[in-house]
Amino acid sequence: MKIKVVKDILEANDSIARSNREAFVKMGATVFNLMSAPGAGKTTLLKTALKKLKSDYKIGVIEGDIATTLDAEQIEKIGIPVVQINTGGACHLDANMIRNAYPEFKGKKLDIIIIENVGNLVCPAEFKVGEDYKIMIHSITEGEDKPLKYPLMFKESSLLLISKIDLQPYLGVDIAKIKSDAKKLNPDIDIIEVSSKTGEGIDKFIKWIKSHLRKR
Amino acid sequence: MKIKVVKDILEANDSIARSNREAFVKMGATVFNLMSAPGAGKTTLLKTALKKLKSDYKIGVIEGDIATTLDAEQIEKIGIPVVQINTGGACHLDANMIRNAYPEFKGKKLDIIIIENVGNLVCPAEFKVGEDYKIMIHSITEGEDKPLKYPLMFKESSLLLISKIDLQPYLGVDIAKIKSDAKKLNPDIDIIEVSSKTGEGIDKFIKWIKSHLRKR
Repeated sequence: MKIKVVKDILEANDSIARSNREAFVKMGATVFNLMSAPGAGKTTLLKTALKKLKSDYKIGVIEGDIATTLDAEQIEKIGIPVVQINTGGACHLDANMIRNAYPEFKGKKLDIIIIENVGNLVCPAEFKVGEDYKIMIHSITEGEDKPLKYPLMFKESSLLLISKIDLQPYLGVDIAKIKSDAKKLNPDIDIIEVSSKTGEGIDKFIKWIKSHLRKR
Repeated sequence: MKIKVVKDILEANDSIARSNREAFVKMGATVFNLMSAPGAGKTTLLKTALKKLKSDYKIGVIEGDIATTLDAEQIEKIGIPVVQINTGGACHLDANMIRNAYPEFKGKKLDIIIIENVGNLVCPAEFKVGEDYKIMIHSITEGEDKPLKYPLMFKESSLLLISKIDLQPYLGVDIAKIKSDAKKLNPDIDIIEVSSKTGEGIDKFIKWIKSHLRKR
């Protein structure tokens, strides 16, 4: 009975996600859904990427957060239009939240929309929102067992950013194991090691974004 | 309508949690519900604590995980009875899962039951499982904005363990802000800084556990 309810919820969600997707295609925007555990560095990495992309592309950001506008304020400061979704108690964004959010861009022509999901390794991977690609950020501070423990997000993502690699000398995490376990779950996943602190890998990430934009 | 469903689910959960609690009181066990984001160091800290407690107390562990038994295997190796709950897709433990799990201890007299929840800063705080105390672990690698962004878990917890403080020289996180924001949300919360690597704070944590055990 409970499983039936969950299935109904996911099906209703997917149908809204498809109609969001159609609207995004019509707008010409490519949409990236950015997911990670709390504190993996989504917002910091996003800010770094936006600064490198904003002169060449029109970008909008949708920020998901339980209760605050802290992240949205940071994005606004660098001059990118941003829409805030406060989920209340919900631990993920869903397609209906996105359907209600993107009209706030008020018909602006956008090349890229980046959706920053709620910090959570589980449910955000279950709820499509109409994105073209899911991007997952995994901080090495979380240890090397996360692909096995949270497999769905690794399976669903097109790109895995392994973050905070500047801390590796103090952690000694088995990064090769993270990569090989992620590849076992999802042989097609691209993997880039990044550090917002040293800038390592950021150019590769920007190149990845550019190469995945919809042709206009 | 969706909100009504959520309310019903939480009420049904709380009623089962109350009956779990009655059973735990009858057993004489004090129950701690251990929560954190993925990779904050729950299992490592738990193993360290268990080694210091197991000669004086009879302890059982219930391990929550999406899909694996990796953490339970680590606990078993140190000779503690452990019951595994695999939640499938669910991002938290609920009272019904615990109701089905604790009979697996098969009437063993236990002084302490520790429940390691799924790594997630949101939903585990919403679902009571019949515990006496919620303990939250917050790694400084997650940054200083988490009390404001995930307030419920800080409000619900009796103890906040600020973990991985050995990394502070490389991070420069504002730990004082974490503490003061947590105290604003929950003036009664106890806070202990810990490092499983250096052992700092572990004795304080053990003392906290001992001082919160139900008198027999």
